[in-house]
Amino acid sequence: MEVMQVLHMNYGEGETSYAKNSNIQRKIISTTNSRLKEAILNIMCNNKKVPESIGIADLGCSSGPNTLMVFKEIINIIYATCRKTGSSFPELRVSLNDLPGNDFNYIFRSLPKFIQKIKEEKGSENCYVVGVPGSFYGRRFPNKSSHFVHSSSSLHWLSQVPFGLATNARTTLNKGKLYISQTSPSDVIKAYVSQFQNDFSLFLRSRSPEMVPGGRMLLSLMGRSSIDPTIEDGCYYQWELLAHALSILVSKGLVEEEKIDSFNAPYYAPCPEELKIAVEKEGSFIVNRIEAFEIEWDASVSSNSSTQCEDKKILLSRGQQVAKTIRAVVESMVENHFGNEIMDDLFSIYSDLVGDFLYKKKAVYVNLVVSLTRKN
Amino acid sequence: MEVMQVLHMNYGEGETSYAKNSNIQRKIISTTNSRLKEAILNIMCNNKKVPESIGIADLGCSSGPNTLMVFKEIINIIYATCRKTGSSFPELRVSLNDLPGNDFNYIFRSLPKFIQKIKEEKGSENCYVVGVPGSFYGRRFPNKSSHFVHSSSSLHWLSQVPFGLATNARTTLNKGKLYISQTSPSDVIKAYVSQFQNDFSLFLRSRSPEMVPGGRMLLSLMGRSSIDPTIEDGCYYQWELLAHALSILVSKGLVEEEKIDSFNAPYYAPCPEELKIAVEKEGSFIVNRIEAFEIEWDASVSSNSSTQCEDKKILLSRGQQVAKTIRAVVESMVENHFGNEIMDDLFSIYSDLVGDFLYKKKAVYVNLVVSLTRKN
Repeated sequence: MEVMQVLHMNYGEGETSYAKNSNIQRKIISTTNSRLKEAILNIMCNNKKVPESIGIADLGCSSGPNTLMVFKEIINIIYATCRKTGSSFPELRVSLNDLPGNDFNYIFRSLPKFIQKIKEEKGSENCYVVGVPGSFYGRRFPNKSSHFVHSSSSLHWLSQVPFGLATNARTTLNKGKLYISQTSPSDVIKAYVSQFQNDFSLFLRSRSPEMVPGGRMLLSLMGRSSIDPTIEDGCYYQWELLAHALSILVSKGLVEEEKIDSFNAPYYAPCPEELKIAVEKEGSFIVNRIEAFEIEWDASVSSNSSTQCEDKKILLSRGQQVAKTIRAVVESMVENHFGNEIMDDLFSIYSDLVGDFLYKKKAVYVNLVVSLTRKN
Repeated sequence: MEVMQVLHMNYGEGETSYAKNSNIQRKIISTTNSRLKEAILNIMCNNKKVPESIGIADLGCSSGPNTLMVFKEIINIIYATCRKTGSSFPELRVSLNDLPGNDFNYIFRSLPKFIQKIKEEKGSENCYVVGVPGSFYGRRFPNKSSHFVHSSSSLHWLSQVPFGLATNARTTLNKGKLYISQTSPSDVIKAYVSQFQNDFSLFLRSRSPEMVPGGRMLLSLMGRSSIDPTIEDGCYYQWELLAHALSILVSKGLVEEEKIDSFNAPYYAPCPEELKIAVEKEGSFIVNRIEAFEIEWDASVSSNSSTQCEDKKILLSRGQQVAKTIRAVVESMVENHFGNEIMDDLFSIYSDLVGDFLYKKKAVYVNLVVSLTRKN
């Protein structure tokens, strides 16, 4: 599987689209708002006066209601700061990046209205928004063009299935599983860790020349709480349950067992320590903070709610909602490997399994938020 | 009709797509190659050394095989010059602009292969290509970001149907016609001339702050040979024949006569003098050259061929080809006004009329090529 050609959030605005099923990603963006404000204020007030032109890049912007959300928040912060300090609104150069398979047409068609609204609310038109297709594992922007780099819910995707675990690998190391699992042999774990280290290091090396000295980077991605990669938190159970759903289809004769054995997700949920070490090793950035947040699988539930819901009917409907969220994200890859015809069956079984799981466990994602500064 | 929301070249790669029917636009780009070379060499050698970073903007890039053609030619020129002078390959920032309805997804999906080829052929990856959605009648790029601005086969499109001639106008001034015609009253001509002057002036005013001093602009657009706007050359007959085809559908009861009366194309073919006066009036640019080329309606025919083809069968098939070329460009607008259901009938009649016309006349487009330099 060529990740760059296959991976994209589900298109359109239908029932299974990413546009309709991206509440969890929206919630993640919201939780990082205070960090966003901190970073933007730092860029604006670091030099004695507000820069005349500010470059902003959103990496893995996807296409849906969340795409312009961060940009809008940034404009609000900049506008408020300019009013407070009596500075004039700077020129904003906004780059929306994602893989070439992303639906940029959808974003572009919603832009005129968005820009018009900024003009009406802020009286400023000084925003230049462009689409930048291509993987963020590699150079994407001109030298010293970005003051602020943002990426949310994207960096847990690897550039490729870890070496030795791809569909065409000679041996199937990770039998019956789609990601690191308790039963995965150590070679599987090593392959995943090594792929992530290579990718994340390439990501940092690519951004380093693109950013102005003192520029800020805010990254949020799925992660885990422990240095042990087999810990059962974060997204662990989502892949386990998807493997389980596929095994049910195997028992029904709808999927060949080997098909599961030869699929490994190009995904990795790191722990904070791994990120810190990688940033320090690359050397161009200062780590300001690395934080971990827990977020309920179901975006409509607050992670602070202590009472566990015991109404199975409600949990099953939550299972459906969670399954839709996952489907909108992983379907392009799963479909590419297993074929389109089993998708509805697969995600129907999956949604039952998720509902059941929510009945038994309190399920949370671990979301890591990393704030970096480009060294001078 | 909101031109910005309606106008786009026909999508996809099917029989009536722009991708399959844009040979004439390709030919036009080819005829301007020597001017392109002149402009790029000027940018590279104007200062004693090649600029470290060069900004290139293609306005009205559309989506199809022509989109990356100019960019490729520019890279060839830059690469050859760098080899000759022993300079290192500059950073290229390439902006592909078109209206938000353009199929940017199509362009973006073809980019990785294109960039890979540059890397293989030239050994350079130092190219950053972005998509910029929005009308070129207004600011689209940051201050002083472009060294070279290119636009081919786009600037004959107006930002709107001329004031007083729009669908919702109280009176129908241009009865039975779709564009300036011999029978058009002077108010129609005035409205078209005035709309073009406003639009072209806004275009120049928008580009002026976006370009670096000494930057170059190369524009090619449909035009006419005389200062008289009713002269029967250039695209004149294409609109006449389309009006004729529609009138045949009126006689068949398939189109209401009023529908024709209330449609006026957001199009204008200027003469060289009009362009020169507009550039001088705006004041930021020096006119290097304004030239007029004739190009046969049928891209497969050379405009120098003196012998007129008299085989009607061949001419009818050429008529079909020409009609397809026009359909790929105007269908979005014509369909928006007249409805989808008559499109096949309309363009079938149109293709017969064009074939017939080619039998009687030697039909050429007048293509204007304008080379400008941004004043220091």
